[in-house]
Amino acid sequence: MTDRGLNEECGVFGIWGVDDAPDLVYYGLHALQHRGQEGCGIVAVDAFGKMTRIKGEGLVTEVFDEDKLSALHGKMAIGHVRYSTTGGGGLENVQPFLFRHHTGDFALAHNGNLVNYDLLRRNLEDLGSLFQSSSDSEVLAHLIKKDSASAHKPRIYAIENALNAVEGAFAFLIMTSKRIYACRDKNGLRPLSIGRLGDGYVVSSETCAFDVLGAEFIRDVEPGEIVTIDHHGIRARKYTHSCSHDMCAMEYIYFARPDSDIEGCNVHSFRKETGRLLYEEAPADADIVVGVPDSSLSAAMGYSEASGLPYEMGLVKNKYIGRTFIYPSQAMREKGVRMKLSAVKTIVRGRRVVLVDDSIVRGTTSRRIVSMLREAGAAEVHVRIASPPIKMPCFYGVDISTYDELISARKSVEEVRASLGADSLAFLSEQALFAAGRRKELCIACFNGHYPTPLYKSVEDANKDGKF
Amino acid sequence: MTDRGLNEECGVFGIWGVDDAPDLVYYGLHALQHRGQEGCGIVAVDAFGKMTRIKGEGLVTEVFDEDKLSALHGKMAIGHVRYSTTGGGGLENVQPFLFRHHTGDFALAHNGNLVNYDLLRRNLEDLGSLFQSSSDSEVLAHLIKKDSASAHKPRIYAIENALNAVEGAFAFLIMTSKRIYACRDKNGLRPLSIGRLGDGYVVSSETCAFDVLGAEFIRDVEPGEIVTIDHHGIRARKYTHSCSHDMCAMEYIYFARPDSDIEGCNVHSFRKETGRLLYEEAPADADIVVGVPDSSLSAAMGYSEASGLPYEMGLVKNKYIGRTFIYPSQAMREKGVRMKLSAVKTIVRGRRVVLVDDSIVRGTTSRRIVSMLREAGAAEVHVRIASPPIKMPCFYGVDISTYDELISARKSVEEVRASLGADSLAFLSEQALFAAGRRKELCIACFNGHYPTPLYKSVEDANKDGKF
Amino acid sequence: MTDRGLNEECGVFGIWGVDDAPDLVYYGLHALQHRGQEGCGIVAVDAFGKMTRIKGEGLVTEVFDEDKLSALHGKMAIGHVRYSTTGGGGLENVQPFLFRHHTGDFALAHNGNLVNYDLLRRNLEDLGSLFQSSSDSEVLAHLIKKDSASAHKPRIYAIENALNAVEGAFAFLIMTSKRIYACRDKNGLRPLSIGRLGDGYVVSSETCAFDVLGAEFIRDVEPGEIVTIDHHGIRARKYTHSCSHDMCAMEYIYFARPDSDIEGCNVHSFRKETGRLLYEEAPADADIVVGVPDSSLSAAMGYSEASGLPYEMGLVKNKYIGRTFIYPSQAMREKGVRMKLSAVKTIVRGRRVVLVDDSIVRGTTSRRIVSMLREAGAAEVHVRIASPPIKMPCFYGVDISTYDELISARKSVEEVRASLGADSLAFLSEQALFAAGRRKELCIACFNGHYPTPLYKSVEDANKDGKF
Amino acid sequence: MTDRGLNEECGVFGIWGVDDAPDLVYYGLHALQHRGQEGCGIVAVDAFGKMTRIKGEGLVTEVFDEDKLSALHGKMAIGHVRYSTTGGGGLENVQPFLFRHHTGDFALAHNGNLVNYDLLRRNLEDLGSLFQSSSDSEVLAHLIKKDSASAHKPRIYAIENALNAVEGAFAFLIMTSKRIYACRDKNGLRPLSIGRLGDGYVVSSETCAFDVLGAEFIRDVEPGEIVTIDHHGIRARKYTHSCSHDMCAMEYIYFARPDSDIEGCNVHSFRKETGRLLYEEAPADADIVVGVPDSSLSAAMGYSEASGLPYEMGLVKNKYIGRTFIYPSQAMREKGVRMKLSAVKTIVRGRRVVLVDDSIVRGTTSRRIVSMLREAGAAEVHVRIASPPIKMPCFYGVDISTYDELISARKSVEEVRASLGADSLAFLSEQALFAAGRRKELCIACFNGHYPTPLYKSVEDANKDGKF
Repeated sequence: MTDRGLNEECGVFGIWGVDDAPDLVYYGLHALQHRGQEGCGIVAVDAFGKMTRIKGEGLVTEVFDEDKLSALHGKMAIGHVRYSTTGGGGLENVQPFLFRHHTGDFALAHNGNLVNYDLLRRNLEDLGSLFQSSSDSEVLAHLIKKDSASAHKPRIYAIENALNAVEGAFAFLIMTSKRIYACRDKNGLRPLSIGRLGDGYVVSSETCAFDVLGAEFIRDVEPGEIVTIDHHGIRARKYTHSCSHDMCAMEYIYFARPDSDIEGCNVHSFRKETGRLLYEEAPADADIVVGVPDSSLSAAMGYSEASGLPYEMGLVKNKYIGRTFIYPSQAMREKGVRMKLSAVKTIVRGRRVVLVDDSIVRGTTSRRIVSMLREAGAAEVHVRIASPPIKMPCFYGVDISTYDELISARKSVEEVRASLGADSLAFLSEQALFAAGRRKELCIACFNGHYPTPLYKSVEDANKDGKF
Repeated sequence: MTDRGLNEECGVFGIWGVDDAPDLVYYGLHALQHRGQEGCGIVAVDAFGKMTRIKGEGLVTEVFDEDKLSALHGKMAIGHVRYSTTGGGGLENVQPFLFRHHTGDFALAHNGNLVNYDLLRRNLEDLGSLFQSSSDSEVLAHLIKKDSASAHKPRIYAIENALNAVEGAFAFLIMTSKRIYACRDKNGLRPLSIGRLGDGYVVSSETCAFDVLGAEFIRDVEPGEIVTIDHHGIRARKYTHSCSHDMCAMEYIYFARPDSDIEGCNVHSFRKETGRLLYEEAPADADIVVGVPDSSLSAAMGYSEASGLPYEMGLVKNKYIGRTFIYPSQAMREKGVRMKLSAVKTIVRGRRVVLVDDSIVRGTTSRRIVSMLREAGAAEVHVRIASPPIKMPCFYGVDISTYDELISARKSVEEVRASLGADSLAFLSEQALFAAGRRKELCIACFNGHYPTPLYKSVEDANKDGKF
Repeated sequence: MTDRGLNEECGVFGIWGVDDAPDLVYYGLHALQHRGQEGCGIVAVDAFGKMTRIKGEGLVTEVFDEDKLSALHGKMAIGHVRYSTTGGGGLENVQPFLFRHHTGDFALAHNGNLVNYDLLRRNLEDLGSLFQSSSDSEVLAHLIKKDSASAHKPRIYAIENALNAVEGAFAFLIMTSKRIYACRDKNGLRPLSIGRLGDGYVVSSETCAFDVLGAEFIRDVEPGEIVTIDHHGIRARKYTHSCSHDMCAMEYIYFARPDSDIEGCNVHSFRKETGRLLYEEAPADADIVVGVPDSSLSAAMGYSEASGLPYEMGLVKNKYIGRTFIYPSQAMREKGVRMKLSAVKTIVRGRRVVLVDDSIVRGTTSRRIVSMLREAGAAEVHVRIASPPIKMPCFYGVDISTYDELISARKSVEEVRASLGADSLAFLSEQALFAAGRRKELCIACFNGHYPTPLYKSVEDANKDGKF
Repeated sequence: MTDRGLNEECGVFGIWGVDDAPDLVYYGLHALQHRGQEGCGIVAVDAFGKMTRIKGEGLVTEVFDEDKLSALHGKMAIGHVRYSTTGGGGLENVQPFLFRHHTGDFALAHNGNLVNYDLLRRNLEDLGSLFQSSSDSEVLAHLIKKDSASAHKPRIYAIENALNAVEGAFAFLIMTSKRIYACRDKNGLRPLSIGRLGDGYVVSSETCAFDVLGAEFIRDVEPGEIVTIDHHGIRARKYTHSCSHDMCAMEYIYFARPDSDIEGCNVHSFRKETGRLLYEEAPADADIVVGVPDSSLSAAMGYSEASGLPYEMGLVKNKYIGRTFIYPSQAMREKGVRMKLSAVKTIVRGRRVVLVDDSIVRGTTSRRIVSMLREAGAAEVHVRIASPPIKMPCFYGVDISTYDELISARKSVEEVRASLGADSLAFLSEQALFAAGRRKELCIACFNGHYPTPLYKSVEDANKDGKF
């Protein structure tokens, strides 16, 4: 799946109690770079409790250089990589947010999406709050402050109240001059894991960042939980008890790095297993298996091993494609995909190909790949998708363009097949997803429309907002 | 005066009702660049009432390129150039500020300094307001919003109330989707002028920006006045009636561009007149007059014409010095000034020199220049300063480092002369300043300590804050 | 193989007779980027026969932007991507070279290495030639010009004579205002292929660039051949008849892109076949097969399929690592490889791993990977290398650091195994290489020391030069 | 004079025998930046005799950063700032040139223009020389090498022969691993001075660079002289005895920095004297004197002092204009000059203005300034030019666009006046130039057509070449 149509918003990463914390966050964000390439930032707390922030638009390696990193000091820091969703570009929306307050500054980083954001924001504004970004993440900060201001109770209660007010999918890191609070939504839609590094702690959207730092995985933050990290160590507290484990299936299928473990299940293994199950559910009479690089590699190998058909490198990705690549002539611009992906004639020519991809959003890319394989001489192209058809928009932070652009929303599998120009097409079943993850709960709302939270409006209305 | 010790915070510029307003603001900010080189930004309102902001650290020509400017559209825009004061660096403090609100977004740009900022901010925070910058300018926005939120009265009343709450020196531009409000402090400490351009209007910290655009000067915003610019034209309203005309003398002496007119008096003419008066008050038996480039040129010419001594280019400034200049070897780094300024041996050798400068802050630069002239062979060096000795800190937006660094704060004129190594030294009298400007009111608090507003603490305490 | 120790110098690409030729060369160079990342350049001939060059240090996407590309026009252009070898950095060595001459300018791009370069250069200098680069490629231009100057014969004869004078490995593109000459060394050590695009022609170091442009492969330039491309079409001519087909084995094993065909054999297929043969020659009693990304993937799959052991993603590469990545703390700097590669604990833990790599140069990287797998919990690590041990330096353009750094030069297989800390180690046999390529000739001098050309000094002396 | 029509090519700077020589050359080039802003470079010789070069397009502060400068080491270095003349852009023409040769590398930097360049180059090419730039400076290197190659005599003889072969205006620096040769053309058209710095030496196009480094002026290189600088100290040798002292008058009038001394005469003093003489030759009945910033300031002051009319800052230059300034709207683009220069209404209004400029080339800028002053309300504008009318092209390195564009070439003074829209116009006489410089020889060919060297073709033909 190389469409731009499917992207998650953001990754968060934090360090508590380790020397050179900002440097470590730099490494951590770099490991989470696949979760957001539009902007990133780090807030560090120095030895005097002072918070400093560096942020910018672009990749971690573009935003930070030695000068910038060396301006950050201390043993605590949090960071954020951002994928910019509709209407939300611009530097002001790049996180972490940093709020200056005479009772103590605090910083906030957020992965996910709040479904009752509009309501909450309007309400806060009516009470005199001023918003500086169009990001839904800022609302939580205002909720916390409103609550802390009106009474002199410990901040943890204000955070609890704020978290109970918001609805949706989130992993929040909140940092004060002394501690980091790691919070997860009550449905467990977004991942957030805790690790140990020396005498300190690490929090990360994905465990792949732990390996980079040599940190040891301790446990996941539980749905509905606030984990406080400070000199007392780790203390957990539930802010609600109506919780579920509806982890976003797309984390397994597409977003997460294959070397991450999400709630105990390795992502590569999950994908490979979907490939095996896909073969069982939809075998194909073919000569070779070809995966769409890079995210479909694991599933394709699973299909290959289960089927006994050889895995061949029928598609090659140009790894030097980046944002600075320009498409000088118009004709070339239209061939966008060809620059990134090439079909290998010598491998494909005369062969019946099983093309394994992880998902189909708009279908544009799949159509181009099928046609590219045919031009390269493929005798037959059998498309196998390692997930069910995406039929519904997501309101929890996955940037599934707009409802009408989902090819499977209004088309049958046979119609989609025809549209792609494939010889056959099959999707994985929903049950297979649960089987691959060896779990009973998952959010598969984009496949079946069963949203685990209220949406505060109809799916059609929510989708029209273009907010998601 | 080439010390970094004396700098003003910021310039503001706005356009209402002219096509390509953001482009014109770009030109306007460029003309105001001397008022702040640390950062700049533009907020524009497009045809649909949507506000877009571009801002960044650096010069106007560094922050904006064609791509960025072409992202801004519409017939209304305001902009800001920023000089970063103590502790206030960083992108979050670069203006204009932009606030998103469901009753309508609004933008704000500010030149000056609020003396009761700490008090107001703490109070607002206690009421639940969240601040994102450490700039004093953000406080006005919160004041306005707090007031607008609690009652459904027109915004102009909220602005009035907010302006009455703040104390200090300011020129504020506030832009909503329909109008621009131009406001000036009741003591008239900072300049703000209005001009006409075609069917629309221009507001600027200095009139030099009008000439660039071909705009016609209409009038200054009066102390204590809010001028509303919208499709009704220009409407003025006093938010208070206890006003004075204490224009900052430093605007005339050092900050403003020589081609600006401040409250009816041309800056170059003012400076030349101080040079003439300086000769009358303190003639020198010498051969040539040399001015410190660039800001002291006018005063030096006045001195030369009044004295009949020839003006000679005894000091030359390297105009290619910029922020990217590096000082590779340590020895060179120490000679910082020599890179920017050279004494011209052939001109200076054997001559008795009158060195005219606009002001002395720490005295470091003056000392280097005197010694540079002596090394170049000057027989005598008579220093003449076209303003009185600076003895007190400024709390109105002039970045006079800290109290203790002011060489004239604790030293007599004779002690300063000895410290500079000059053969003689004289300062201009306070009366001469008023005479040069042909006016009776001016803020000369940095010379005589008569601050036109309350300071909310003792001068010593205020100064210790390092807030100024 | 992710060592920096093994790199080839350069790729060349040319277009004749196609509109927007410079744009197409941009695409072509981008497809050849893996052959050189240190610098690149394009020379284009416009409609008036004028040659313009743009070149710079960095990736194709870094050197060229829209402004720069749009400065190049015409239907003919050649380009070059450069890998900087020892001592040869700097802009002056970035190609194509461009020579201005009153009989017509000409440009030159070169992939490979000339073994009698020192001799020829000294000789030319004694005759008054001035060299501006330290690149061996400039010598050919001087040879051609010396010869053309002394007699008024057609340029093709001068080129023939020059090519007969140089010894070594090369693919040369020479462009005049009318034609492109594509030349290959008589031993056929470096690849060079010709394709058709519309009414024009394409020449490229690798065929993968043809697919990107939609060009059709015609044939390879033969060893010892000059192919002239102009309005007469394609004309070939042998400059010598003592030719062989000693294609560099490393092109197949490591350098070339898997989707390229070299002399009729697909690179991925070659590698996969080496993986199969490697299993036959050296099976391992293990649980999973893991390849070192990216270049060893094909071989690892071959091993997996032949052995029936599942292929698992036990190592993951961070695809956002680039040259701007910084290693802030010293401890991190030493872990260089861990940033690029991570071992996946959940996959590796408790398993017996067959680790397939394409080659071993210094052994440093292999050692780190083995240890990384063990730290991740691998029960056993069996290293299998899909090529023979590298024992000798290369003088034909492969940057095999220096002789003494080759781990297999002085160590037995068992000693290398011990040094890597592997449970077992096996290399592919030389015969298997020929079998995988289904060919009888290959240059495998780096494995067995049988250099296909004279070296003009002893291997030891040549190596000491540090020229290679 | 702010036209782009009049520019000189280049400045050269060298250091021998001083630690951190490349750093010092950086400072020196920076002081010579006004002589060329298109590109610059430095070649340094390290302790092992190895030459390294860094060069690039742009200002000294743009091309060099700390990384680049720290790559250069040693006690010898030469540098160059380049003004790009017609057709001569591009990195390949940026100097110093560096030639690699087995008898020793050498570097070369050149200021000026060779009039028999075409002839010499064609001849050298016919003998087999290969040129890599289109710069006339490369020809000297080839001449030297051809001569050195054919016989084993000391290099100084080869340099002598080469200098005798070239005709035109030049200051050449030639650096080998041991010494620097500083050479000047036999007519002394371009300046070149030698200074002492500690135990070493400095060579520079202008003496202003000496002051920056604290170097002591020793003497000028004489016309027709080669000065060799090495561990023996300074040794001079004439390569010809038919010499003159035809220093380019434009160096005094416009190019050189006011703080430079050229052949014993300070440039500011020269200009001020021309202002005085201009008043004597052409007084004006007016109220104020206004100079065109920056280069006409000295002359305007001279005029003011001689006339007793006050000097006023009627025109102000925006010092933040740089190459990154963009002109967003078309209308603005046409007002180019207004952005750089503003007329100050308050000063100019109702006044009769004497506008002093240093020279007129095309007249475009002067016309705009006159009209700008009138728009600002000037009652009368009397233009006074501190040099004679430019009537002829220059072939010695001054970029006087093309013949036909010289407004004074075909128009009488009265016609020019009318074209400018001035109330009166007067130029300085030729005699006054000699008087101001207190010298009897000067090259004033652009005023009177008496070229001090043969041109090798008619003025018309030479001019048509567009080479100048």
